[in-house]
Amino acid sequence: MIVYLYEFIGTALLILIGNGVVANLVLKGTKGPDTGWTGISLAWGIAVFIGVYVSADVSHAHLNPAVTLALATAGKFSWGLVPGYMLAQVLGAMMGNFMVWLTYKKHYDATEDQGAILATFCTGPAIRSPFWNFMTEAIGAFTLVFGVFFIAGGSFGEEAISLGSLDALPVALLVMGIGFGLGGPTGYAINPARDFGPRLLHAILPLKGKGSSDWGYAWIPVVAPLFGGFVAALAYLAVSV
Amino acid sequence: MIVYLYEFIGTALLILIGNGVVANLVLKGTKGPDTGWTGISLAWGIAVFIGVYVSADVSHAHLNPAVTLALATAGKFSWGLVPGYMLAQVLGAMMGNFMVWLTYKKHYDATEDQGAILATFCTGPAIRSPFWNFMTEAIGAFTLVFGVFFIAGGSFGEEAISLGSLDALPVALLVMGIGFGLGGPTGYAINPARDFGPRLLHAILPLKGKGSSDWGYAWIPVVAPLFGGFVAALAYLAVSV
Amino acid sequence: MIVYLYEFIGTALLILIGNGVVANLVLKGTKGPDTGWTGISLAWGIAVFIGVYVSADVSHAHLNPAVTLALATAGKFSWGLVPGYMLAQVLGAMMGNFMVWLTYKKHYDATEDQGAILATFCTGPAIRSPFWNFMTEAIGAFTLVFGVFFIAGGSFGEEAISLGSLDALPVALLVMGIGFGLGGPTGYAINPARDFGPRLLHAILPLKGKGSSDWGYAWIPVVAPLFGGFVAALAYLAVSV
Amino acid sequence: MIVYLYEFIGTALLILIGNGVVANLVLKGTKGPDTGWTGISLAWGIAVFIGVYVSADVSHAHLNPAVTLALATAGKFSWGLVPGYMLAQVLGAMMGNFMVWLTYKKHYDATEDQGAILATFCTGPAIRSPFWNFMTEAIGAFTLVFGVFFIAGGSFGEEAISLGSLDALPVALLVMGIGFGLGGPTGYAINPARDFGPRLLHAILPLKGKGSSDWGYAWIPVVAPLFGGFVAALAYLAVSV
Repeated sequence: MIVYLYEFIGTALLILIGNGVVANLVLKGTKGPDTGWTGISLAWGIAVFIGVYVSADVSHAHLNPAVTLALATAGKFSWGLVPGYMLAQVLGAMMGNFMVWLTYKKHYDATEDQGAILATFCTGPAIRSPFWNFMTEAIGAFTLVFGVFFIAGGSFGEEAISLGSLDALPVALLVMGIGFGLGGPTGYAINPARDFGPRLLHAILPLKGKGSSDWGYAWIPVVAPLFGGFVAALAYLAVSV
Repeated sequence: MIVYLYEFIGTALLILIGNGVVANLVLKGTKGPDTGWTGISLAWGIAVFIGVYVSADVSHAHLNPAVTLALATAGKFSWGLVPGYMLAQVLGAMMGNFMVWLTYKKHYDATEDQGAILATFCTGPAIRSPFWNFMTEAIGAFTLVFGVFFIAGGSFGEEAISLGSLDALPVALLVMGIGFGLGGPTGYAINPARDFGPRLLHAILPLKGKGSSDWGYAWIPVVAPLFGGFVAALAYLAVSV
Repeated sequence: MIVYLYEFIGTALLILIGNGVVANLVLKGTKGPDTGWTGISLAWGIAVFIGVYVSADVSHAHLNPAVTLALATAGKFSWGLVPGYMLAQVLGAMMGNFMVWLTYKKHYDATEDQGAILATFCTGPAIRSPFWNFMTEAIGAFTLVFGVFFIAGGSFGEEAISLGSLDALPVALLVMGIGFGLGGPTGYAINPARDFGPRLLHAILPLKGKGSSDWGYAWIPVVAPLFGGFVAALAYLAVSV
Repeated sequence: MIVYLYEFIGTALLILIGNGVVANLVLKGTKGPDTGWTGISLAWGIAVFIGVYVSADVSHAHLNPAVTLALATAGKFSWGLVPGYMLAQVLGAMMGNFMVWLTYKKHYDATEDQGAILATFCTGPAIRSPFWNFMTEAIGAFTLVFGVFFIAGGSFGEEAISLGSLDALPVALLVMGIGFGLGGPTGYAINPARDFGPRLLHAILPLKGKGSSDWGYAWIPVVAPLFGGFVAALAYLAVSV
């Protein structure tokens, strides 16, 4: 169905630009080693803008299983579409990251730091602590989903699903804010597809002298965003007027 | 009442993102130590965008006792709502900063510089001088409130209160400009709730080896913004056409 | 007349934020020494946004004698208003810079580098060369005025003057672009009032151990922007459809 | 014809601001040596904003032969106009870069690094590899053209050509995202005119101690963007609803 295709495309564009900027920052020999956290936060927000803009008018631009689950929980999205959306998001994230790999192929080859390479696929904590890493990701995703519900709110009364292309800018600013403010401890996955899909790709791709895909951490950026988004849905329903 | 709840939510989101970026910049071991003043200025503006966007259509997004006092002074907001608004703003700021603490818990634990920790709660002067620090904060808040009155002006004739969600972007740019241009000497509190609420939380929270909450400075980021906003209200009334 | 007052206010806000960010960058002991050229370019654009937003609906936000002269040259603005507009712009720029001085007073006192202090008032060339500095300022002002004519163009047919508050964002982006791209050699005055007014204030203010106001350079950021804007007006008339 | 003139003007403004920021970053003695990749990405996006804004309502702002070819391929632009558009784009890029040279003349004279001087005209790879450099440029141009088709999509049904001035902001954000995310390996020409025109100018201009114009690389930023844009046109037609 066309909505799944658009979730795939939107998520692929999101990850292509988003993990592209990480590759530009951390891989050896690129032109952007000075991009810094300001660049990372701005670029991921812009990546969201592009992904949402392209997909919103067809699939309403969830691009994130935490958003999909939260909307279904709130009764604003059909449960029957949930599995297809989530699968499309994961596959889209994999495709986007595959294109990052093609774009930066020579720089992957030149990079020896396996942690840097993994960082161009998925997130990892600055200080490893399952409980507090979960807390950080849950608060980040709560903020994302809570904000998205307000941005999408205008069309809630009538339609089951919500974001349109005019919402791309506020959602982008929201994600920029989360990057700046809440991304410091864990690199703000806040999206299970954004983390799991590329981690799976990392495990599959024939990277030179490949290091660990850090599967021990992988459940946190999957479960915590789903939980944070779920709580945000309840919170939104409790306070919306 | 629902307006108080929305002031609480909006201010909490403002402080969560805003002091989150300070935590990302100054606490030990985060991913954003290179965020810099450009990142701080952009992120606080984006934090305002999020807080205003979410709350504006219900509570009109004051999020700042200096704005509330100035609107009441100008006859555009009911004095009866002023105490409740201010209380909600202070409590919201405390809640937002509490979530910053949860988000960055392991980095608070790792940070020994007590000045850095205090900076993630409230502002302090680069060069301590009560008179000139007051001047700086008053000019900053004057600029904020004067600008907000013009942004809200379109709806002034009919309604007692003013900002809507479409005003979130101009207010965000205004606060970015104040951060860049006027934030250098005192860190631009320009908002009594943004400074007092988190300072109180700092005094309450069980932070490891906690330093002073610097209560000797605390009156300046409370009184100076109220004074600057009051003058801005008078100036706006004098020049508006 | 009220239009002069609004030119005064708009230009004062422009310089308050714009030269505020320079002060934050170059004066001793501020919180923003790492703001850099990216911050300077963004902040001056935001300063333009604020100045235009506040003044546009009354005075149409020239804020710059080069814009005023160009509009009059193109037959889109009454010559009778030109002297008053220019005087208001110069006085507004002086007022804005006076507020920068009050905001950063303790940092002015702490700064020994007289070149840094002068830079918080007016522009100077990176490499001194009257001919090429003139060329740079003329190209910068040409780009500004040419762009402003297109942004204001929608309302040209009917009205004598042009910008409205909805034009604040495109003009801000235009000035950001000029800062990034054309500001490197001379610091992009591109506005006689922005340079002459504050330079005059520098000559008047009782700054500690004050250095030269560099009057030998002062004619370039006055004459070159007027010339560049004049050429832009002719170019716009030649190509507009 | 007027559409060619507007393509010329729009592309000239794009290159004036875009390569201006490169000059500010890499030439000796300018005020912006700390602009960094974040500044480069933001400024090129803003340069696109200005070029598109000025030209869109007359020539629909292709400013890029890859966009022109893709639109013609998709049946949305007359093949008869293609040669004139492309020529105007190349000449406009040359004019824009000539103005960069005038703006930074004294800094060109002061710069001994011939690679830095060439970088203010055209792109070059961080790691030279024809196959992978082609891949990078093709993916970048694919992302650009694919996104532009969606942004222009609203008016596709009725008109042969597409972008209007209201589309300037989304296109600018798209190009900012490509710069941040995909610019690291080759400096993102993603536009044959942007690279070929200025490279030709570099070969012609009497630069002091001029180095190579690197013609061996020149075909990649010409052919790869045309190819990437062509694929994007097919992809858009396949998925558009």
